[in-house]
Amino acid sequence: MSQAQNIAVVLMSGGMDSTVCAAQSRADGFIPAGLHLRYEQRTAARELRAFHAVCDALGISRRLVVSTEHFKQIGGSSLTDSAIDVSDADLTSAEIPSSYVPFRNANILAIGVSWAEVLKARALYIGAVEEDSSGYPDCRREFFEAFQRTIDVGTKPDTNIRIHTPLIELSKAQIVQRGLALNAPLQHTWSCYQNEEIACGRCDSCALRLRGFQQAGALDPLRYAEKD
Amino acid sequence: MSQAQNIAVVLMSGGMDSTVCAAQSRADGFIPAGLHLRYEQRTAARELRAFHAVCDALGISRRLVVSTEHFKQIGGSSLTDSAIDVSDADLTSAEIPSSYVPFRNANILAIGVSWAEVLKARALYIGAVEEDSSGYPDCRREFFEAFQRTIDVGTKPDTNIRIHTPLIELSKAQIVQRGLALNAPLQHTWSCYQNEEIACGRCDSCALRLRGFQQAGALDPLRYAEKD
Repeated sequence: MSQAQNIAVVLMSGGMDSTVCAAQSRADGFIPAGLHLRYEQRTAARELRAFHAVCDALGISRRLVVSTEHFKQIGGSSLTDSAIDVSDADLTSAEIPSSYVPFRNANILAIGVSWAEVLKARALYIGAVEEDSSGYPDCRREFFEAFQRTIDVGTKPDTNIRIHTPLIELSKAQIVQRGLALNAPLQHTWSCYQNEEIACGRCDSCALRLRGFQQAGALDPLRYAEKD
Repeated sequence: MSQAQNIAVVLMSGGMDSTVCAAQSRADGFIPAGLHLRYEQRTAARELRAFHAVCDALGISRRLVVSTEHFKQIGGSSLTDSAIDVSDADLTSAEIPSSYVPFRNANILAIGVSWAEVLKARALYIGAVEEDSSGYPDCRREFFEAFQRTIDVGTKPDTNIRIHTPLIELSKAQIVQRGLALNAPLQHTWSCYQNEEIACGRCDSCALRLRGFQQAGALDPLRYAEKD
């Protein structure tokens, strides 16, 4: 296997899950290449800063930052539309939350595959989590299986890119534990949907993260404005 | 069926195939909504002009123009990388031409689905052609079938978006005939990969189009610098 073929494109938001995912890709023997998407979400600048800090900490030199304006244009989500309030977390609800960006993961994976094909990468890592996904349809295993088939038939015959979802079955607590075991730089990550300086502690993403640390019996290195 | 549910998002490059496709969607009873992508390809400005002219001619008022910079960033294609020459057409070759943008149709479809989900559209039309596709892997029926499955499992339960590929089995000559039968505004379309003022007549796209008109026994309303 040549070195080029040992590359894994890793989708890295700058958050905890994708950071654990990047650390996992390295533990699996790949050379991670970091792909970060800016889609004009509320906390885009903070997430970009986290992305670079995490890459620095993990020694990831091959990075691509892509700005996509269409999520904002298309709207339909509180993550990109400042006219829609970010819902406070309701972790017991089965409803799809207002932070849903339609078909976001398909857009992200498609960009990742385009880059991976040019890099001749063999893997595409995404830190999606089925259980804690707040009901996003494109976080489910079924979705990734369907997308794998799309890659297999939609790329060149000599391209062989496999989607890796190492966190898909894990709870947030297990992700925290995995991150600690892999020595992932969690102190550099950013998860809050609401704020850019001090995490709000109240949005879906903060609530899931905090519960994960609590259940793992570990201390989150981030500061929070408020913990529920 | 409410009017909102009768919308079809139509991917419209400004070229002939997608224009025939838009005319077809209307003939099929849908209200077309035009989605145009700028990916910093060589002829982006000319294609955008064609898109609006075609929408005007077809009475399409709902339009979305999305700029995606990542194809250019990712490279690997003569369509976006000015350092790679556009190959002269070789219609007998089975090789994938240098104008290939990796996994382009997956990226385009993903954007289309995101918009379609917000519009509550029921259909997504794309003018892909298997036979004349110059070997692009993501122009094949197999690819669209796989992507349909990805949509079905990756969108909200009440979303029901079907991919329509009305040209997939047609030859270029049959597309010309279909366009003429539907009274599609072919005079406003643009197909050339190379030039923005007078079509070159030599690139893959011009060569396929010219051969199509010739085989259909029809006259292409466009002017060409050179016909092979």
